[in-house]
Amino acid sequence: MSEFSRNDHEYMARALRLARKGLYTTMPNPTVGCVLVRDEKIIGEGFTSPAGGPHAEINALTAAGNASGATAYVSLEPCAHYGRTPPCANALVEAGVTRVVAAMRDPNPRVNGGGFHILENAGIQTASGLMEAEAREVNAGFFKLMETGLPLVRCKMAMSVDGRTAMDSGESQWITGPDARADVQQWRARSCAIITGVDSIIHDDSSLTVRSGELRIENPEAAVEKQPIRVVLDSTLRIPYNARILNLPGTTIIASAHPDLEKQKELESRGIEVLTVPGSDGRVDLSQMLKVLADRGCKEVLLETGARLAGSAVRQGCVDELLIYMAPILLGSQARPLFELPFEKMAEKLYLDIQETRSFGQDLRIRASLKERVEQP
Amino acid sequence: MSEFSRNDHEYMARALRLARKGLYTTMPNPTVGCVLVRDEKIIGEGFTSPAGGPHAEINALTAAGNASGATAYVSLEPCAHYGRTPPCANALVEAGVTRVVAAMRDPNPRVNGGGFHILENAGIQTASGLMEAEAREVNAGFFKLMETGLPLVRCKMAMSVDGRTAMDSGESQWITGPDARADVQQWRARSCAIITGVDSIIHDDSSLTVRSGELRIENPEAAVEKQPIRVVLDSTLRIPYNARILNLPGTTIIASAHPDLEKQKELESRGIEVLTVPGSDGRVDLSQMLKVLADRGCKEVLLETGARLAGSAVRQGCVDELLIYMAPILLGSQARPLFELPFEKMAEKLYLDIQETRSFGQDLRIRASLKERVEQP
Repeated sequence: MSEFSRNDHEYMARALRLARKGLYTTMPNPTVGCVLVRDEKIIGEGFTSPAGGPHAEINALTAAGNASGATAYVSLEPCAHYGRTPPCANALVEAGVTRVVAAMRDPNPRVNGGGFHILENAGIQTASGLMEAEAREVNAGFFKLMETGLPLVRCKMAMSVDGRTAMDSGESQWITGPDARADVQQWRARSCAIITGVDSIIHDDSSLTVRSGELRIENPEAAVEKQPIRVVLDSTLRIPYNARILNLPGTTIIASAHPDLEKQKELESRGIEVLTVPGSDGRVDLSQMLKVLADRGCKEVLLETGARLAGSAVRQGCVDELLIYMAPILLGSQARPLFELPFEKMAEKLYLDIQETRSFGQDLRIRASLKERVEQP
Repeated sequence: MSEFSRNDHEYMARALRLARKGLYTTMPNPTVGCVLVRDEKIIGEGFTSPAGGPHAEINALTAAGNASGATAYVSLEPCAHYGRTPPCANALVEAGVTRVVAAMRDPNPRVNGGGFHILENAGIQTASGLMEAEAREVNAGFFKLMETGLPLVRCKMAMSVDGRTAMDSGESQWITGPDARADVQQWRARSCAIITGVDSIIHDDSSLTVRSGELRIENPEAAVEKQPIRVVLDSTLRIPYNARILNLPGTTIIASAHPDLEKQKELESRGIEVLTVPGSDGRVDLSQMLKVLADRGCKEVLLETGARLAGSAVRQGCVDELLIYMAPILLGSQARPLFELPFEKMAEKLYLDIQETRSFGQDLRIRASLKERVEQP
C-alpha cells in the first residue's frame, strides 16, 4: 500500500463518501464516486446517476469543465463497455487526465481490467487497490451478483432480548420503536427486491413499500421513485385478492410451487406476475427465485418474513447477512423463535460474524454475516 | 448545580475513580474515595480499606499529613458513628479541614445526615449532591440494602443470538469466549454472595470461586482474599457429597425447602451451613434467602443459574439487573430458552432498560435492568 500517499487516501475516502450517496438510486448499476484533483485542488466530483444517466466519472468531468492534467480517484475501475452510456475510460482519456487511481477492479465480465487497459494504452498512469475493502462493502451486492450470479440477501428480523418474535398464539405487534422502523425503511430503499411469505400478507397485510417520509437519508424522494420488486412466496396461491400488496404501482411477483391457472389468470389481470418455482419439498424453491431476481439485475434483496421461512432460508445457505433489531423486552419461553432451526446437537449450531451493533432509540441493531459451518475443535 | 465549580467536578470525579478501586475489597462497607485539596493542589487522597481498616477519609488524611485549611471531596457523606473505626466526620474536624464536598448523603440510618451535622457544628462548610448519580451507581448494592433491606441482585446468563442457552437434550458447553468469562470473574469478585441451583452443581460441578489469575483488575490478589459466600438452592438436598463446592475454603450455604436431618448433619460435618428456607411452592423461598444474605451484610449478589431458576427469580421480582453475554452463534428453535417465563399474552411481556452494551472479544455483553411492569398504551 506504500504506493499511495496520504492525499491519495483522503481523495479516495471522499470518492467513497460520494459513492454511498448513490446507494438508493443506481440499481442495477453499482454506485461509484469520482473525485478529480489537479495541483492538490478538487476541480470536480460526482457519483453515479440513476440507471441510464451518466456514471460518476462523467458527472465529475462535467463539473470540472476542463480536467486536463488531473488525477481521477474512482471507487471502481472505469467502465470499458457501451451500455446505456459510452465507456467512462474513453471519456477520461479524451478529457486528458494523466492518472487514474481506482479502489478496485470491476469484476463485471464486461469490464474486468478492460477499463485499465484503455487508460494504459492511452499513456495514462493507473493504480488500483486503494481502500478496496471499503469499496467492496459499498457495492457488496453488485459484486456478489457478478461473482456468483446471485444477489446479496439480507434477512431482517425483530426480536426480544430473549430471542422471540411473537407470542405462541400468533399474537404480535411492532416490538421495535420508530427509529428502528425508520432504519428498516432505509434497507428496503437500497434493496432491488423484498421477499416475504404469504403468511405475513395474510396476517399483517404488509405492503412492503418504501415511504419517503420515513427515510432519513439525503434526497428521499429520489430513493422512492423506483420501488423494490415485491415478491410473495405463496406455494399454494393463498393470497387474498384484497391484499394491499396487489394494488400498488410497480412490480409485484407471486411465486408459487403449484400451477393454478385460474388463480394465476385472476392475479395477472390485476397486473401481478405469477411465477411457478417449485422446490423438491412442495414449497417455493427460494434459491431458484433468487436466480430469477438476479437475472433481472437484482443485487441486494431483503427478506422480511417469519421464523419458518427465515429459518429455512438460513438452513439453505441463501442468507448472507442478518439484520436483527432487538427490542428491550422479554417475551418469554413459550413465544415464537427467531428462526425455525430444528437443531438437536450442539455441533449443528451456526456461527455468525458480528459486524456491527448499533442503537436505534431503545432498540439495538445487530448486523452479522453467517459463517461457513465449521466443525468444533 | 451551579454551586459547584469546574474544579469541584474534577476533584469529585477523581474521588469516584478512587472509590471504584475498592469495589472488590470493602464489602460489606460501601467503597468511598476521598481527595484533599489545598490551594488548588491535591495534598492527599485515599479510598476505603478492607472492612475493619481505615475509611477513605482517614487514608487521605494520613497521606496528607497536615490537612489544615483543606477542602475534602468525598464520594459519600463522612460517617458519624463508631463502627469498627471511629467516625470520619470527627477526624476531618480534628484535621482542620474547612470545607467538605460530598457526592451524596449516606442513607445508612446510622449516618443519614449525622456526618454533615458534626461538620457543620464545628463550623465547616458542607455541600452535597455533586455527581450524585455516578456515586449512587458505584455503591448501588449498598444503597439498595440500606433502603430496602435486600441486596442488589444481578442475574448472569450466556446465550446465543437467538436467545438460547443449551440444547434441548441438556447438551451444553461454554458458548462465550475467554474475554467474556474473565468479565464474569470480575462480577463474581465484587459480589458478596453467588447463588446457583443444585442442577448446575450436578451437571457442571461448578465451584463458583473467584480466580485471581483471571481477574483483569488492579491488585487481583486482594480481591480474592475474601471469596463470596456460595449459596446452592437445593430444595430436596440432592447435592452429591463429592461436589467440588463442598470442599472449598470459605462459606458455602445449602438452602433447602424440606428438613432432612441426616443429610443436614452429613453436610454440616463438612463445614457446610444448611438452611431450611421453604417457599409456598415446595421450593426454596428465594426472597427469604436474599433477606438472610442481607442480614449478613451482603450488598451485591450474583445469580448464576439455569433458565428455570433464573426465570422464577425474574418473575418474583427478585432480579435488579441482567448481565447477558451473547455469543455469535445460533442454537436453533428447539434449544433451551434464556428464561423459563411461560407468558401467553403480549401484555405479560417484561420491559428492560438497556444500560450498556459492550463487546468482549466476539461476544456482546448486555446490561439491563428490569422495569416495573407497565400496561401497553
